[in-house]
Amino acid sequence: MNDVRHMRHALSLARRALGNCWPNPAVGCVLVREGRVVGRGWTQPGGRPHAEAMALTQAGAAARGATAYVTLEPCAHHGKTPPCAEALVRAGVARVVSALTDPDPRVAGRGHAILRAAGIDTREGVCEAEAREAQRGFLTRISQGRPMLTLKLAASFDGRIATASGESQWITGPQARHHVHALRLAHDAVMVGGGTARADRPGLNVRGFGPVRQPVRIVVSARDLPELPPEGPAHGPLWQVSGPPAAFMAELGARGLTRVFCEGGGVLAASLLRAGLVDQLIGYTAGVVLGGDGRPGFAALEPARLADAPRFRLVELRRLGNDVLHRWLREPATDCQSMSCDQRRHSQA
Amino acid sequence: MNDVRHMRHALSLARRALGNCWPNPAVGCVLVREGRVVGRGWTQPGGRPHAEAMALTQAGAAARGATAYVTLEPCAHHGKTPPCAEALVRAGVARVVSALTDPDPRVAGRGHAILRAAGIDTREGVCEAEAREAQRGFLTRISQGRPMLTLKLAASFDGRIATASGESQWITGPQARHHVHALRLAHDAVMVGGGTARADRPGLNVRGFGPVRQPVRIVVSARDLPELPPEGPAHGPLWQVSGPPAAFMAELGARGLTRVFCEGGGVLAASLLRAGLVDQLIGYTAGVVLGGDGRPGFAALEPARLADAPRFRLVELRRLGNDVLHRWLREPATDCQSMSCDQRRHSQA
Repeated sequence: MNDVRHMRHALSLARRALGNCWPNPAVGCVLVREGRVVGRGWTQPGGRPHAEAMALTQAGAAARGATAYVTLEPCAHHGKTPPCAEALVRAGVARVVSALTDPDPRVAGRGHAILRAAGIDTREGVCEAEAREAQRGFLTRISQGRPMLTLKLAASFDGRIATASGESQWITGPQARHHVHALRLAHDAVMVGGGTARADRPGLNVRGFGPVRQPVRIVVSARDLPELPPEGPAHGPLWQVSGPPAAFMAELGARGLTRVFCEGGGVLAASLLRAGLVDQLIGYTAGVVLGGDGRPGFAALEPARLADAPRFRLVELRRLGNDVLHRWLREPATDCQSMSCDQRRHSQA
Repeated sequence: MNDVRHMRHALSLARRALGNCWPNPAVGCVLVREGRVVGRGWTQPGGRPHAEAMALTQAGAAARGATAYVTLEPCAHHGKTPPCAEALVRAGVARVVSALTDPDPRVAGRGHAILRAAGIDTREGVCEAEAREAQRGFLTRISQGRPMLTLKLAASFDGRIATASGESQWITGPQARHHVHALRLAHDAVMVGGGTARADRPGLNVRGFGPVRQPVRIVVSARDLPELPPEGPAHGPLWQVSGPPAAFMAELGARGLTRVFCEGGGVLAASLLRAGLVDQLIGYTAGVVLGGDGRPGFAALEPARLADAPRFRLVELRRLGNDVLHRWLREPATDCQSMSCDQRRHSQA
């Protein structure tokens, strides 16, 4: 019971790091001694320090004899920081509870092995499904070599993103628009197609959350880009990619991105859907009707039959002001679910 | 406190009659004596007996000294049944609590006046907003001379009702489709355009709810209709109307309808929206993407500006299987809200 409660706490810390720590996974860590939380940590901007290091620093001597709750197996490799598994051993932690075995081949069970070899009571797989959901971007990059992709559609009741004359400000209300900025913040990068970049000159930045690490701006276009704001405190780096979706998504994965938020336009969205690269759909539905002459959100997909059209599973539904937010995950979840099986076999081996 | 609780009970009974008692309003009545429910009633199929008559019959002698909770002012006019206000007096009811003054000019406060003249303690306006919502069809017919109109759209994530080739079975799942039948049951009539009638030969009936009073089937078309199933236990009467929407809606009001459920097609839907005749939108959103080549739900509306597009207010949101149900009411609610003010003035007079 308490293990689940403390792991949920660690998961809530991990989510703070989403979009902020690529290429590293967003991890949370809680140190509990005699029922009292003595340290909390999450992966810091840019990926370092790791969650465990932050929590151990906070706990100091109180870490001795404590239980560490970590949302991902502690790392075992000497990278830019010493391995967290060794740090936990050195700090005298008595017990470690983890949610997920790290599929990174440099870890892959060796973190847990270091802990057990040092005599630390180690329990794995607590809140694994929730951890897998929070780690979806990191896991997709490890298993498929590309970032997880979220596709947004903010539309009228009848699925239109603008009037026939192109007017689109505003279909959804301020709460839905604020939510879009929260989602940008929780992704490593924001992506649009070249047509949208040229037509709208979009900011592609996070506004309304104070000073933050701005997401990378990605424009998918083989042509020259329009003048967009330079990189700075209010705008992330600007990357241009082009070519087949699977190729540029692999390129983005190689550059370290784990979570990409695509906001259109319709041609780019359709090409990503056709290529089976969309992992998550975010819909905002407003109570306005624009009619069949309004602009559609996505270009032609041409599924031969309804059974061939991409299907998603509803995972979140709520009201935002006078708009509806609905969130969907790809069905079947080919990446995470198959990995889940692999991992389970791995853990049992 | 108890007044509200018992009125909510009466309202839940009233809702059972929706779609089943036109041209009469769907009313609920609960008789409570010494804290115990001694009679329950709701408007019976076709509109008679009234809710009060049913509850009084059930209570018998126990009605003497009881409190009657009625969702609409008891009727005062001698129609096909004697007035309910007089029946409540004769039964020796001690107190009457009502939700709404009946705007029907044959009643309009005279029911309450009969009760008060007989020395019955009479309280009005309990749960008035909820009662107004349940009575929206009846109130629209009284105030505007036409039935309330609900427009349905069952669509893909991106607002499409069929693939480019016309395939539409099934976009939404069985729970959403069952919900459509529940909505048909709660309306007096189901309406489609001539194109839909000819292309789909739709049943326009209620299935999956046992033997029920089937809704009227309305086809909007000036041309000859295709052969549709004859009226019988499984299919309601078939009415054909045509002409401008405001005219045929007035005709349907004159024929007694209070609640009409329009299921398309897109040309009829757009003409009703353009005419400002849509009071309620029902959306079902499925987790499938059909793309810009899929068929739109509504034909062109051509709002000159986004500000001219019809706006609706979100009033219900829930999950049905893997689909989203969202329900919206017209904003601003010109009919009921303005009537609400009139009524309040009336009650205070």
